Amino acid sequence: MCVGQSIHELLTPVALIDEDVMATNIKVAQEYFDRIGRNFRPHIKTHKIPALASAQLAAGAKGINCQKISEAEVFADAGFSDILITFNMLGRARLDRLKLLNTRTDLKVVADNSVVVDGLSQAFQDTQMLKVLVECDTGAGRNGVQTPAEAFELANRIANAPGLRFQGLMTYPKPSSEAAVEVFFSETLALLAEAGIDCPVVSHGGSPSLYDSDLVPSATEHRAGTYIFNDRSMVRAGMCDFDDCAMHVLATVVSRPTETRAVLDAGSKALTSDLLGFVDHGLLIDYPDASIAALSEEHAVVDLSRSARKPEIGERVRIIPNHTCVVSNLFDRLVFHRDGVVTRIEPVAARGQVV
Amino acid sequence: MCVGQSIHELLTPVALIDEDVMATNIKVAQEYFDRIGRNFRPHIKTHKIPALASAQLAAGAKGINCQKISEAEVFADAGFSDILITFNMLGRARLDRLKLLNTRTDLKVVADNSVVVDGLSQAFQDTQMLKVLVECDTGAGRNGVQTPAEAFELANRIANAPGLRFQGLMTYPKPSSEAAVEVFFSETLALLAEAGIDCPVVSHGGSPSLYDSDLVPSATEHRAGTYIFNDRSMVRAGMCDFDDCAMHVLATVVSRPTETRAVLDAGSKALTSDLLGFVDHGLLIDYPDASIAALSEEHAVVDLSRSARKPEIGERVRIIPNHTCVVSNLFDRLVFHRDGVVTRIEPVAARGQVV
Repeated sequence: MCVGQSIHELLTPVALIDEDVMATNIKVAQEYFDRIGRNFRPHIKTHKIPALASAQLAAGAKGINCQKISEAEVFADAGFSDILITFNMLGRARLDRLKLLNTRTDLKVVADNSVVVDGLSQAFQDTQMLKVLVECDTGAGRNGVQTPAEAFELANRIANAPGLRFQGLMTYPKPSSEAAVEVFFSETLALLAEAGIDCPVVSHGGSPSLYDSDLVPSATEHRAGTYIFNDRSMVRAGMCDFDDCAMHVLATVVSRPTETRAVLDAGSKALTSDLLGFVDHGLLIDYPDASIAALSEEHAVVDLSRSARKPEIGERVRIIPNHTCVVSNLFDRLVFHRDGVVTRIEPVAARGQVV
Repeated sequence: MCVGQSIHELLTPVALIDEDVMATNIKVAQEYFDRIGRNFRPHIKTHKIPALASAQLAAGAKGINCQKISEAEVFADAGFSDILITFNMLGRARLDRLKLLNTRTDLKVVADNSVVVDGLSQAFQDTQMLKVLVECDTGAGRNGVQTPAEAFELANRIANAPGLRFQGLMTYPKPSSEAAVEVFFSETLALLAEAGIDCPVVSHGGSPSLYDSDLVPSATEHRAGTYIFNDRSMVRAGMCDFDDCAMHVLATVVSRPTETRAVLDAGSKALTSDLLGFVDHGLLIDYPDASIAALSEEHAVVDLSRSARKPEIGERVRIIPNHTCVVSNLFDRLVFHRDGVVTRIEPVAARGQVV
């Protein structure tokens, strides 16, 4: 594959990114945050590509969000400085790497429990101070302290821990839960203010709630990843149209065993098994009444029983994935194009970085 | 990470392979096929590592099975010759690569339709002959001709196509469908015999049906991948015990937000979202009453409500994945150990090879 080639000549399956759709997604989201006067911190998990994070910063984003230290190291190597890692850091080997990273970037991490805070404090007490935010579970049911009282208690522990600086609050919210997030944040902020603990950052997040971020007035920044490409789940959430989905997985019909069955060469190794509540595995743009009923690793079985038009063997079809972030993690390269002509091929630099 | 290190010092998540369990799995399966007098062709999709395929061949396997041409190229580069690619090959760029591969290996491919056969014939008519098997759908509902009559018709087309040699029949069966497979194969073989068409290979497959391969007497070879590591789905299928599962994903408890919730640092980027009919995302060996209720990319949310014992923050836990093959595809390296001491670190050479 090379620049200038038609996407129709590429071997399938291939993950394609429409340059213009992506550029518009970056621009529109940043304009929203500029308008409401809030910092925006894109999550790199969706693309894992430094050049794309650079475009997000060039548009006005404040810094980047990573989930794992290995991802942050890739982006630090690429020259990024303002990095928030939204994950509890545990274990000597990881903390040693964190100390190195903290010497060369403006690093922030989160913690939701005293074991993590005490480990960080022990590791950083004799070196450059580390900024730590308290992760709050405002309803999503994943990591996070459960109440404003717990958030205050942990913030206080961080503020008093050698080697650490309390930097603020952070949540990854349940979609459409802005009111609950605001209650959690504002109650915690009141407790902190009463105790005289400064709270520079209040970090809200999520692509599904991106354009409702103004409903959380306590927040000072927003983190989001998926919005740069968008996907079927974002369309369902009402955040965009199918035309705003920059990522298509291009696949080929390799078999038509029966009148109502087609098989594509894109399986779970191209699309993942993430359903995100859907009953099938992505939208066939050109055959919207067909359903990707089952995936194995290299095959997608398509049910054509409700589709009046039926694709032929050898035909290429475009798929909007249920979840774009996990697709990027499966490909060594994403192929960018404008009007079907390849513009660039970007290695997915932080692909597979799980530690 | 390095040889001689304890697995307890490794950063998590990490995919571990127990050397002795794997060696036993290789040996026991090969002994079964030796006993029933059938060729065995391991599918490399489960490990994607040449050194492991070499161990399978050393035990007595006849050749290897790949699913995509890019995988086959990796194994050809590593010196493997007897390769069956069980996928329909379409498109000029792919067929050009197939022609090159056919000059340096004893290559076989499959086809289940005339478009594929005609494309292969056109590509190979002026070069070294390609061996082609007919893929049969014996009930799994994926690729394959639907009836023995269709299988015969396509075999006949291959036998008469310039550049191609009809090499046999192949199926990826539905589990526990040996009787139906035997009917399909024997009826097709009768039609071929009547027409005087030689059928050197009859290839049956699947790890769930591995030890029932003798119930398909028409078959001359069996293909299987998962058996080398085994996984939770293989235990459910009655093919092995949990002690026979060579792959564990080692993860760390990073949060205990509530009394009944733990969060691990192994999400869908380590375990995939493959459920394979399970309601949760893998078995916690040390906490069998706990349930990995939800995955996001980097988090596993564990429901501890039925588990009397509950893990602490910082504790390491071992997970037997639902589906081992897809886990190998997510890691750049698999870490091998004996009694918890690292024996070798193997790059997953054919990881991410989707075309």
